[in-house]
Amino acid sequence: MHREFLVKWLKDAYAMEKAAIELLEKQAGRLEHYPQLQSKVQDHLRQTEWQAEQVQGCLERLGERPSTIKNVMGKFMTNMAAMTNATANDEVIKDAIAGASFEHLEIASYRSLIGAAEECNEPEIRGACEQILQQEIDMARRLEDHLPVLTGEFLTREERSMEAKR
Amino acid sequence: MHREFLVKWLKDAYAMEKAAIELLEKQAGRLEHYPQLQSKVQDHLRQTEWQAEQVQGCLERLGERPSTIKNVMGKFMTNMAAMTNATANDEVIKDAIAGASFEHLEIASYRSLIGAAEECNEPEIRGACEQILQQEIDMARRLEDHLPVLTGEFLTREERSMEAKR
Repeated sequence: MHREFLVKWLKDAYAMEKAAIELLEKQAGRLEHYPQLQSKVQDHLRQTEWQAEQVQGCLERLGERPSTIKNVMGKFMTNMAAMTNATANDEVIKDAIAGASFEHLEIASYRSLIGAAEECNEPEIRGACEQILQQEIDMARRLEDHLPVLTGEFLTREERSMEAKR
Repeated sequence: MHREFLVKWLKDAYAMEKAAIELLEKQAGRLEHYPQLQSKVQDHLRQTEWQAEQVQGCLERLGERPSTIKNVMGKFMTNMAAMTNATANDEVIKDAIAGASFEHLEIASYRSLIGAAEECNEPEIRGACEQILQQEIDMARRLEDHLPVLTGEFLTREERSMEAKR
């Protein structure tokens, strides 16, 4: 019974990581004028690919495979990406805000998964989730700490580009 | 120029708080079996109403009014709510995960707004945003700390209800 939810939530986490990869790729592509943030995003993209493999390993341990059908979480993330795309010129800021929120979606998901893995007596799955959790916490902190700097950079760039057009 | 973005982002924040109210009301309604979390959510609902008023006050200080048109952030939140609705029986967990992620969307938005208010030399707006930010950080922490307990409660309840059906 508990195991059924552990499997379901691991499948959700897998879809979430796959959506994260798409989101980070799009975000990185829009950061050519923000090399500091771009390098953080690219590093986390590689980390996210590794995390998806870890989650797949957890599912295999339970005799399951990641579902190829996009689930609720995956759709949620894709919508989030599509909507941040829709915003005019401040997408760099909106991407960063959505990105930080997304890290915390992952953080909360892994916290819940750690509880479920414990209930199911699966210490190796718990360990994998704890390792991923720490990476997500670190990335969230990096993004959040960088937000005030990014906002300043963005406003300065916008002002310059407006002046250039005058 | 900077002021234009400060106004835009305050309007986004207002729409976000309005969406938060809807989201928290729905979530509270689904927590009748989880009184501990329900009371946290209800407290934060009242806090969120106060926050929306503060943001409106900031806009008025700049000679602006909240936009009634739902914007990107608002739509994002409504979609998030709709999608967490769509999930079968584990919506209590998904609501809590989405709720924590949502708090961090707010946290990141206010961090960026604080940067913009500083650039625009608006110390009172900066102060209002800092006060709201602290409340959001506290709520995010409460939700996250409660997630492992909630997951355990949920799994126990599910198991009992399955046993009752046998």
